Order: sequence, then C-alpha cells, then structure tokens
Amino acid sequence: MSLGGRSNLRIPSHGRRLRLGFVGGGRGGLVGEWHAAGARLSNRWEVVAGALSSDPINAAESAKDWLIAADRSYADYHDMARAEATRPDGIDAVVICTPNWNHYEAAATFMRAGIDVILDKPMTTSLADAESLVRLQRETGLALVMTYPYTYHAMVRQARHMVEAGAVGPIRLVHVEYLQEWGVEPPDPGFKGALWRRDPAKAGRASAGADIGTHAYHLLHYVSGKDVTDVRAEFHVCGAPKDMEDTVFANIRLEGGIPGLLWLTQAAPGQYCGLRLRIWGEKGGLEWDQQFPEQLRYTPLGGAEQTIVRGRGAGMLSPAENLVHLPRGHGEALTDAWGNLYAEAAIAIEARRSGRSLPKGSIEPSGALEGLQGMRFVEACVDSHEGGGVWVKLKRELAIG
Amino acid sequence: MSLGGRSNLRIPSHGRRLRLGFVGGGRGGLVGEWHAAGARLSNRWEVVAGALSSDPINAAESAKDWLIAADRSYADYHDMARAEATRPDGIDAVVICTPNWNHYEAAATFMRAGIDVILDKPMTTSLADAESLVRLQRETGLALVMTYPYTYHAMVRQARHMVEAGAVGPIRLVHVEYLQEWGVEPPDPGFKGALWRRDPAKAGRASAGADIGTHAYHLLHYVSGKDVTDVRAEFHVCGAPKDMEDTVFANIRLEGGIPGLLWLTQAAPGQYCGLRLRIWGEKGGLEWDQQFPEQLRYTPLGGAEQTIVRGRGAGMLSPAENLVHLPRGHGEALTDAWGNLYAEAAIAIEARRSGRSLPKGSIEPSGALEGLQGMRFVEACVDSHEGGGVWVKLKRELAIG
Amino acid sequence: MSLGGRSNLRIPSHGRRLRLGFVGGGRGGLVGEWHAAGARLSNRWEVVAGALSSDPINAAESAKDWLIAADRSYADYHDMARAEATRPDGIDAVVICTPNWNHYEAAATFMRAGIDVILDKPMTTSLADAESLVRLQRETGLALVMTYPYTYHAMVRQARHMVEAGAVGPIRLVHVEYLQEWGVEPPDPGFKGALWRRDPAKAGRASAGADIGTHAYHLLHYVSGKDVTDVRAEFHVCGAPKDMEDTVFANIRLEGGIPGLLWLTQAAPGQYCGLRLRIWGEKGGLEWDQQFPEQLRYTPLGGAEQTIVRGRGAGMLSPAENLVHLPRGHGEALTDAWGNLYAEAAIAIEARRSGRSLPKGSIEPSGALEGLQGMRFVEACVDSHEGGGVWVKLKRELAIG
Amino acid sequence: MSLGGRSNLRIPSHGRRLRLGFVGGGRGGLVGEWHAAGARLSNRWEVVAGALSSDPINAAESAKDWLIAADRSYADYHDMARAEATRPDGIDAVVICTPNWNHYEAAATFMRAGIDVILDKPMTTSLADAESLVRLQRETGLALVMTYPYTYHAMVRQARHMVEAGAVGPIRLVHVEYLQEWGVEPPDPGFKGALWRRDPAKAGRASAGADIGTHAYHLLHYVSGKDVTDVRAEFHVCGAPKDMEDTVFANIRLEGGIPGLLWLTQAAPGQYCGLRLRIWGEKGGLEWDQQFPEQLRYTPLGGAEQTIVRGRGAGMLSPAENLVHLPRGHGEALTDAWGNLYAEAAIAIEARRSGRSLPKGSIEPSGALEGLQGMRFVEACVDSHEGGGVWVKLKRELAIG
Repeated sequence: MSLGGRSNLRIPSHGRRLRLGFVGGGRGGLVGEWHAAGARLSNRWEVVAGALSSDPINAAESAKDWLIAADRSYADYHDMARAEATRPDGIDAVVICTPNWNHYEAAATFMRAGIDVILDKPMTTSLADAESLVRLQRETGLALVMTYPYTYHAMVRQARHMVEAGAVGPIRLVHVEYLQEWGVEPPDPGFKGALWRRDPAKAGRASAGADIGTHAYHLLHYVSGKDVTDVRAEFHVCGAPKDMEDTVFANIRLEGGIPGLLWLTQAAPGQYCGLRLRIWGEKGGLEWDQQFPEQLRYTPLGGAEQTIVRGRGAGMLSPAENLVHLPRGHGEALTDAWGNLYAEAAIAIEARRSGRSLPKGSIEPSGALEGLQGMRFVEACVDSHEGGGVWVKLKRELAIG
Repeated sequence: MSLGGRSNLRIPSHGRRLRLGFVGGGRGGLVGEWHAAGARLSNRWEVVAGALSSDPINAAESAKDWLIAADRSYADYHDMARAEATRPDGIDAVVICTPNWNHYEAAATFMRAGIDVILDKPMTTSLADAESLVRLQRETGLALVMTYPYTYHAMVRQARHMVEAGAVGPIRLVHVEYLQEWGVEPPDPGFKGALWRRDPAKAGRASAGADIGTHAYHLLHYVSGKDVTDVRAEFHVCGAPKDMEDTVFANIRLEGGIPGLLWLTQAAPGQYCGLRLRIWGEKGGLEWDQQFPEQLRYTPLGGAEQTIVRGRGAGMLSPAENLVHLPRGHGEALTDAWGNLYAEAAIAIEARRSGRSLPKGSIEPSGALEGLQGMRFVEACVDSHEGGGVWVKLKRELAIG
Repeated sequence: MSLGGRSNLRIPSHGRRLRLGFVGGGRGGLVGEWHAAGARLSNRWEVVAGALSSDPINAAESAKDWLIAADRSYADYHDMARAEATRPDGIDAVVICTPNWNHYEAAATFMRAGIDVILDKPMTTSLADAESLVRLQRETGLALVMTYPYTYHAMVRQARHMVEAGAVGPIRLVHVEYLQEWGVEPPDPGFKGALWRRDPAKAGRASAGADIGTHAYHLLHYVSGKDVTDVRAEFHVCGAPKDMEDTVFANIRLEGGIPGLLWLTQAAPGQYCGLRLRIWGEKGGLEWDQQFPEQLRYTPLGGAEQTIVRGRGAGMLSPAENLVHLPRGHGEALTDAWGNLYAEAAIAIEARRSGRSLPKGSIEPSGALEGLQGMRFVEACVDSHEGGGVWVKLKRELAIG
Repeated sequence: MSLGGRSNLRIPSHGRRLRLGFVGGGRGGLVGEWHAAGARLSNRWEVVAGALSSDPINAAESAKDWLIAADRSYADYHDMARAEATRPDGIDAVVICTPNWNHYEAAATFMRAGIDVILDKPMTTSLADAESLVRLQRETGLALVMTYPYTYHAMVRQARHMVEAGAVGPIRLVHVEYLQEWGVEPPDPGFKGALWRRDPAKAGRASAGADIGTHAYHLLHYVSGKDVTDVRAEFHVCGAPKDMEDTVFANIRLEGGIPGLLWLTQAAPGQYCGLRLRIWGEKGGLEWDQQFPEQLRYTPLGGAEQTIVRGRGAGMLSPAENLVHLPRGHGEALTDAWGNLYAEAAIAIEARRSGRSLPKGSIEPSGALEGLQGMRFVEACVDSHEGGGVWVKLKRELAIG
C-alpha cells in the first residue's frame, strides 16, 4: 500500500503560469474569491488584471487586495479587453464572475477581442444570448469554459465513469435536489448577491432556477451522461416574500423517457448547500451529497452497500484518480474542486492556443454547450411554470443555429 | 440524571389482556408477524383466534405456530366473526392484515358483528368502500384503528408536537419520500405479497401508491397537522416490467397552499425502507428518517443544528416520552413502534367499551378518518395520473356524506 | 428479490410457551422490563410467577402490573423456589435480574431447586461465587443462561461469523469502548440502580467495570472468538464524586498476544450507550456501534468499504439471518435482541429438558462459562488497578475447579 | 441572513507576497505539495527558491515543476541558506519538510542565517536537538512556526475557544485517537516516506509516535488548553513486520490529574486518517473527527446534542469565523487548513520583521514550544515503553534551558 501517486494537475505545462484577468470579483461579492482561490491553488494561473467591480473605487481597492498592478486595474471591462488584447504580456484568459446580466456582454466582448473566456453560470440571462455565445465560440474557436465546479470533485467524476462503465446498469430513475436556506429571511441589505438574484432585470427569467438549478441540472447531466428532454415545473416563493421564485419543483424526462425529479429551494432552514444526486439503474444505485464530497455511496443490487472514498485504489477509476491530491482520509473539498477546474481550464486553453489535441478523457471541462444546455433547462422550467405546468421539450445538445 | 421513568403503555389497564383475533397473518405472509409481535410486546393482548389464511391448511398450520386453539382457528372469517361474537370469551377485537382486497369485506363483517377492528392500510381498494367503512364506524360507534405504525415512533410523535408547539414556525414547504428496492427485479414467485400488490384486482387502483403512498401521506399529515388539499401525480414503472406503477411523483398542496413533494418508488437499488420526512417553516426545519428512527434533526433558523435523540429529557416533549421504554442510546425501532400501536389500540378499545373518555392527547391512534384520507390521497393520485397530470382536489377530512 | 423468509425463533417449539418466573423486575427497577419485553416478544414464554421486589408491597403491586396471579407473587424468592419447584404447573425457568449482590444466592437457590436459570450480568459479586455457580451448573446439568443481549443483534452475530470465516484475516488489533453519561451528575435519589451500582457491598469490587465492562468484554470475546489473557487497568472517578470507579482504562492482550484497548466510562456527556467494537486483522476491519445496531462496517483491505445492513441476502451469513425478523430497512433494535435472547434461551432449556442436542451453531446462548469469564475480567481489572497498574493474567476458559 | 462576510487571511498585508524557499518537497515526497498548496492558496507567499531534494537531479526537475528559477534551485540547503540570506530578493522564510532526521540541521542552518523557519513535525529526532532549536529561536528572535495543520481547521479553533469559554465546564476526561491503515502491508518500495518513517536512524526514537503521535498530542493540547503531565505507553507492531512501532497505546494525565487515553495505529484496515478528539467535562462534551472536519459535535449535559457546522453565525465564535472562507455547506477541508496555516505564518513573520505586535488571539500559529512539547511527548512515550510501561513525567512548557 502506498500513499503516494501524484496528480499532475498542479504542475504548469510549459514552464509558466497563464495570465488571468477578472471581470467581477471585487469586495462585497461572493464567488470571485472562490474563483481566485481555485486559480491560485491550481498553480497554473497568475491573476494580473481585472475590472473587479462596476464601482471604480471598489475596483481599485479590490485590485490592491489581489496585488493587481494599478495600470491593469480597469474601471470598465471593455477597456480591459482592448488593452489586454494588445499588450505583449496581456492576459491569456478572462474570468467573468459578475452578476448574471453582465455575462453575455462581457463574454462576447472578450471573445471578440480574441481572449479565451472562463464564465460563471448561468451562461446568460436569455436563451438568445446563450445561443449567440455558442455561435461566437464556434466562429472564434476560442475556449469558453463554464464554471460548474461540482463536476471537478473526484467522487463526481468517479460517479460519472462508474455510470459509463455500467456499474448501475441502464438508468431507470433519478432524483437531484439542491437545497439552501438563505432565502428564508429577507436578505441582508449588505449582501448584494441576494438582491440581484431576485431582480428579473439582473438575474434573468428565473432566480433559484438560474442560480442553483443550473448546477443541479448540470451535475445530473454530467454524471448520467444523458440530456433532459422534457420538463414540467412549478415555481414557488416559500421563504420571505420576494419578486422571483426561491423554490422550483421539476418533473423531468431524460433521453429514453427515464423519469426523474429535480427540485430546488433556498427556503429550507438547516439546508446549507444540500446538493444531492441519486441515480438508480437496473443493477445498482449511486448517491452523492455535496456536503460530504469525499464519499460516494454505491449500492450494487443484491450486494452489500459500498462507500467509495476519495483516494487511490480501492475502487477508484483512473479519471477520478487524476483529481486526487491528498491520500484517502485527508480531506479535499470545494476549494480543491475549484483548483481542479482551473487546472483543467488552463490545460484546455493551452491546448487550444497550441493547436494540440488532448487525449480523450484526460480532462473534462464544461464548455459552451454545457452553458447553453443549462440555459435551456432554466428557460424550459420558466416556460412550463408560466404555462401552468405544461410539459416543455428541451432542444437537444447540438441543435443550435 | 436518571435513566428511570417508565411508560405505562405495557401495563394492562384492568387486570387482563384483551383477546385478539387475526384475519390474515398466516405463513408466507409478511406483515402478520409484525402485528403479532406488536401485540405481544404491548403486553395488552393475547392472540386467541384467527382465520389466518384463505388456504385452510395454511390457516390451521399457522394457528399452531401461534398457539391458537384448533377450535378457534377458522377457515373462513365470516364464521369467525359469528362464532367469536357469541362466545363469552370471544375476541375483544380483530386485526385485519390480509391483502387489500379483503379489507372492506372483512372489516365490515366484524363491525357488523359488533367487534372492534384494527385494520392494516390501505383501508380498502376503493374510495366508496372506504366511505362505507367510515359510515359503518360512525353508526356502530366501534373502534376502527388504522395501523400506520410509523406514527408510534417516539421521535415522530416528538416531531408532531414540536410542529404544534411552533418549533418550525408556520410551515412553508414539505418533502416526503418513501423509497424501496424490491420492485427492481421480477418478484420471487414465492413472495405472494409482491404478486397481489401488482394486481389491480387485489391491490386497488394503485400499487406503490396504496402500499407505501398511504404511509408517506399519513406520516406527513400526522406530523404537519395539515391536510393535503390538492395533488398532481404521475405514475411510472421504473423496475422490472409490471402491470401497475412502482413509482409515483406527486406535487402536493397542504392547507393554506403550502407546496410540497411526495414521492415513492420501489425500484431504487440500495433504498430498503427509505421513508424520510422533511418539514420546513419560517423558523426552522425538522427531518426524520425511518431507517434511523431514534433521531430527529431539528434546525432552528440561525442556531446550531440539533439532533434530538429518543429518551427522557434533553428536549423531549411529554407526549413523546410516553412512548419511551428504554433509556436514550439503548435502541428502539419498528417493533417497539408496533408495540406502542397495539398498546394505544388497546387503551382506545377499552375506553370505547367502558364508555370512558381519555384525557386529550394521552394516546393518538389513527382511526377511520385517517384511513379514508389515505384512500382519498391514493385515489386523487390515480385520478391525476389518468387525467394526464391534472391537479385534483381532495375532499376534506370531515366531508363524507 | 424477496422480502420474505422467516425466522422460526418466535414459534414455540412444542405447542406451548414455557413458564417463566422473575426474581427482581419490580417497579423502580430498570432492566426487569427489558427482560420481560424480550420474553413476551419471543412468544416462547409466559410470565407466571415472581418475587419482583425485596419490598413486599412493591412485589405485590408489580405482580399486578404483570398479571401475575397473587398466589404466585412471592415476597421471598426462597419461598418462590420451593413452591414453584413442586407445583405441577411450576415455572420452567427463572430470570434473576436483581441488583448484583443477590445474583449468587438467588441463582444457587433456584438451581438447587432444579430450576433452570436465566441470570443477568455480572454473574456475581465475587469470583469465588462465580466459580461456585459454574460448579453447581455442572453438577446439576441445568441451563444457566447469562443475559448478554448485545450478542443477539443480527449484526453482532454477523460480525462473529465473518471473523470466523476469515473476513478480516488473523486479528492483529482490537478496540472496544462502552461510554455512558449518567454518572456525570450525582444520581437522582429515586434512581435506585444508580445507588447500588456505586456501593461496594452491593455491586461487587467494581462498579462501571462490573456494570458495563462485562458487556464490553463479552462482546469482544464473542465476536473475536478469543479470550483475554492479560489485562492492565486503571480506575478513575471522572463524574460526580462517588465511592467506586465510573471510568476504566484497560490495556489487554488476547490469545496469541494480540494487543487491544478496552475502556469504559459513565461520565461522558453526550454518550448515551456508546458501545463500539472495532476489530482489525491482516485482511480487513469490522466495526459495530450499538447505537446503530443495524449496520456493520466492513473494510476489506484494498477494497471499497462496505456497510452490511441487517436483512436477508446481500452479504448476510446464515447464522445472522436466523435473527432477522423484519426486512432490511425496517428497524430492529435492542428489544428485538432481547427477544432473540429469550427465544434462544427457551430453545436451550427445552433441549436440556428433553435431552435432545441441538445442531451446532443453531443457537448461541451464553452460559455459565461466559458468566465466569466476565467476572474474571472484572476481577483482573480490579487486581491490576489495586496493584498500581500491574499486568494481571486471566485464567482460561475451562480452568475452574 | 447573509452568506457574505469575508476573512482577510488571503489578502497580503503590505502589498506583496512573501518569498518562500523549500527544503524538501521534491518529486516522490508526500507532504511538500501540501505545504506548497497551502502557501499558494493563502495568497501571501510565492515559492522562489528550493533545495527540493537531496538528489540533485530530483532537486532540479522538481524545481521546474514549481517554476523555481534554475539559479535558485540548490543541490544543498547550506548553499541555499548562504545564498538566499545575502540576495536582496532573498527568501523571507524557509519551509523544511524533509524526512525527520534533517529537521534539526536544516532549521538551525537557516536560523543561523537569519531566516525565519516553517518546520514540519516532529520538530527533530531527539529531545536535545529540539531544546537546541528552542534556544536558538529565543536567541535569534526569529519565527519558528511548527506545521500542525489540523489546528487551522475552523472547527478545531471553534472547539478550542468553546472549551476556553466553558462550554464543557471543567474537563474531566479525554480520548484522542489517530488511526491509519498504510502499515498493514509491507511498504511499496517506491514510497520512500514509508521506508524512512520505520528507520530509527531517520525517524527518531519513535515511528508512528513521531509521525502521527505529535499530531494527536498537539491537537489535544491545543483544544484542551492543557499540558500532558504524565504518560504511560506501550508500543506494538500490529501490521506487517517492521523495525519500529506502528501502534502506540498511551494512558495520559493532563494538568490537574485529568485522565485520558491517546492512541495511535497505522495498522487498521479501513482507517484512512482517523484523527478523532473527544473532550468531556462537567457540563458537556465536544467531539471532532478529522475526516468530517466541517462539523463539531457538542453535547451540553441535559440538552439536545448539537452539530455546529463551519460557517458564520449559528454558534460560531469569532476566532473560528476568522478561518471561514466559504459559506456553510460549501466544503472546506485540509487544503484550506494548510492555507490558513500559511496565512497565519505570513502574518506572524511580517509582524516579527516589522516589530509590530499583533492583537492577542488574532492568529494562533504554533511555535517552537509546541514543537518541543511534541518531542517531549514522543520521548516520554518511548521512555515509558522501554521502561516496561512505567509512568513518565513530562517537563512543563516553559522549563527548558
């Protein structure tokens, strides 16, 4: 038995770290720090530029926090795109982690400037914008990496590859839930993220649906390997009064008519970040809980139930072992998942820049299509809800344009 | 600190045990033994008569297993009702734990003979029959105790009374699921219970819906203190092919429009008896899992989460303490819940016979209305499913004609 | 897949229940009800006689609680032994569940009267008395069943037989703990069990050591299949001041020099009944926690960890399946274990009375030697502690006389 | 309710990152990457120099992995100390994460060169060396930060401050265990860390005792706030044959005579990194398990048990909130703890360099005395074991020199 074995994810590929810029991420925001932590941990990026806030003072102060040079701290991301695209030491990629309503314009701006984009979910605030971004990505050939971090947990990758290898047999039933509690009470006025997430002008047509529904959808899609083809949804406000839904119930069908439930709430006291996926097939079941990310419950039909624990060996599949940094029992969690995401984003972007293709399955970053699919799911939920709970079909993965 | 304190549940009230007869419960059945174990454990009943099987040989052999005298082992329950009603030492009550399709006729037969009835769920195979039984119960004044054993777990009673006392505040959202695995594969031909549960002529209009849906519905109703007013359901076969559903997804509304999900499957490998209730209100949440029945998770909003463990003190409410037999940490489980059910059934029946009324809240047996409500829920699910997923209203508790 | 299959444990063997008498078990006591519940649940016993308390009023009142006829409620157990031994319908066996200091005299009295004995642990308050009882048992040939209920949990039996079958390979290390909290505060004066357990005249030379140490010792012995050969112990008072220890640390050696730790406390807030056994060998580990008795954690070296859950199939061994009454996921717990104990005691006593031998392994009741071994362990701990922590050797299983 | 609030730990204090050198950490090692990941995640360090291996080729190749410039990759750490001490852009501190036998010489070398030291545990391989390092630290006034990462988990800090605030009352009993499985089988020859850890010339007088015993000891000391005053230990080889112990049983006394158990093994299949601390006092208990680091179990005597989950509010104390980076339910784990360690090390070293004192309690890095205490504990265990299990007294914290 060895505790050794090493992932190469945190070793920069070509003797240098890539240069990263941020749009969003300034003080008072929530997720910018998570992106930055992942980038640092990956050891493949240095953050050198940013338009960290739409508030110029916040942008400048936040840039100091991150040791971004004053001349590369921009008050406007359009300026940033122009300037960085022409500097010899310009950024290799930009992260966009603003509120949703900036996603489309910011992503398009940088792509038009020839800069690879790492984009937070949901992709945009409208389906049309999402389709435009996919088209733009195809036209430019740039990388457009969507940041769905949960799929970079080793045990989520393990689940995906176990499903692919037939561990549960043909899938027959799925249940995914994403439960939070922060919408129970009126938002703290200082928590800007709570305010724009409930504002249709800023969040898009859905609130919880866009915010956490895209995560739940993508996790299910990634692990099952199947598209959602149909959805019937209803929206509710279960927490403090608000202008948009904090709760979504969705009945779904996966390819082949497989039934499932996907539901969301931000109004469940005691549910902090309760993202839980369960997939049942003819031969077994798999269950994963984001709050205990190191463990995957596997229940082969007729056998003793198993807990597969992150580490090397003992049932781990090779693509999942690629994401292992610490020996079994020394915990990894969400920060490590973000690190994996940024490592794989770097590898993908380096490959695009160098024109090299990567061995299939060596990395599994989510791209423009996964962003679009997330939007299609959200929009279909809204359409269903607005239609009084009718079934709505989702377009399939490749059918854009 | 004391480990002492004693429940009086297992002390017979009037110096004798009540005499109990069984319809159903013979060899090859599943639940008869659970009822009998509860009756024995309660120390308030002796099993003295039975029509244990529709197969006379099985009936006679099974009677020997249970030490029922040969002259009180009946091949036909109609004979049993007649004979026991006239014996001076006739049974004080009958348990009906046959397959569903006998429930109505058997219950009506014994009630017409003046004998109190303890009846397994679902109450009947049709709503009309259920309403007839309720009317018959009202006309006769007899006890008609429905056996929903989960509500006799101390921690379920604790949950109910915490809700009533406002621990979670006004309820805003509920989720209940009951997940099993035995429908994944074709049934073992020797397991008769699997065969009749999938036969519409014997199970009623629903299979999983009737079998475990009534439990899930009743648990939710009992703990929340609220009726389901509307339901929209879809039925699926997710396990081995079969003539009736093994999976039910139901969107529900509780009184006041509170949204919820209630779903069932018998096709989830690794889910043995996964009955889980979660109730969230404005001030907190409560979660209970039948497979870990000693623990109740309570999450007061803004406070540390609590695990209330069955025992005396440490947050236990008095009605729940009434169901405590062992000190905290010495496990009680389903057998103990059945024991509590049979103890409370005895107390209720003794009270009826003696004309005494019991202090409110001293016992909480489920009766005819709870049986009817379970049927209404199942029928509404079927109606919704057959209507293509329309919303169906449930009649309210007292509205029978 | 079938939920069926039936244990025969609760079917009386010869068309009648055995008649049981109790010494101890009256109101205010703790464990008498547990014994009685097990006896009732087993369906193999009826409680017909008792000397339920040394207080005659309590004895009489308690007899009414249990529906013992007045003429078979005795104020003195010596009278009971005499009377019952001569009645044609006299008791088939007696349960002795008094405070420790009565065990020897009561057991000897009934054995001398020719009555089989079911005896609570610890066997006696002195080693000499324990050896006397073993001799008496050998001379009389009567059954002397020690009530160590934990070894009647299906998953404990599963663990024992997995060890025997080599699932963990040769054992190399063990850890067992039994942790409670009731000694943190001064005892409630109304809780008599707390008072005599701390009184050397009544409890024996050890308090926690005798009370829960015998359980921990026996569980380890039963599952590992190995004797403790050497012990080094130290005693502490960690809770409220008291005259005897509430905490024991013991370093142990099993046969072959296998090292282990066995430790006890009754002064750990939040530990209700934390009896936990862990056995590690060259090929795997097994872990069982009394508070979650349905699950056995099995960790084969180099494989995914397994949770074996009580039920039929899915890794369960046949001797463990014999103790299964409910399908997997419908909970059994301590009451069910007591039921199994009383069923096996009945079978053993019937076999003795009829002179028939039972198939090896069909039942596994603990007998006089297991009682003696428990005493030897406790006495060795006391000797070690009094000797300043010296190593003390235990006599081996058969070496009495 | 807000998800916001931000720790300042990852914001560099003076507009620059500190420059860090590594001794050890090259390919094939285990812990170097953990240190480096923590340094990167902290955002307060850049790794600019290293003597990463005693093998010059490994050193050079490893330096490339970490983007260390060739002229700052040293084959010998003595050269590195000299060169870096004189460069204007020389390192601000050095990490020493070599095998144990290099700790003393390397630490002393850099301290003599005036460079602050971050040193892995155990401090040295002999008590004399440890005392020398403490003296050297006092003479030079340099920072000597010991890397005990577990005490940088938010919930460990929470535990410490809850103890300090009286949440459990006066401590009466403690139990700490650190269990691993990698010593069950002979070491993989490629896993160098397994080889030197079992070599007395390289590991010191103890193997498991030094490797994981120092962690267990320090965790207990940190949370309880108490020194171990006396120890009685025995050493065993429970896994594959080896020259040094893989298992340690230690009876301990904390200040005031509080009894406890501390035990270790590396031969328990299924125990990956099972570091578990339990502290019981007169008013409650606290339990923490390294494998589930986000949760702290708190059991106030007589109340419902609580699970305090990492996050802001809901029972979290301010010093623990300082270590919180992600909202409750978004997981942090060991990598985050290393990040916290390196952030606090940076703050401590900046404070030393600038001569500023920090507000009491603002950071809690472990220093030279904690390193020495760890060594004293290990040495006392060895002395006790070699003395046949005699009680050995530990010197107290300040008594050196």
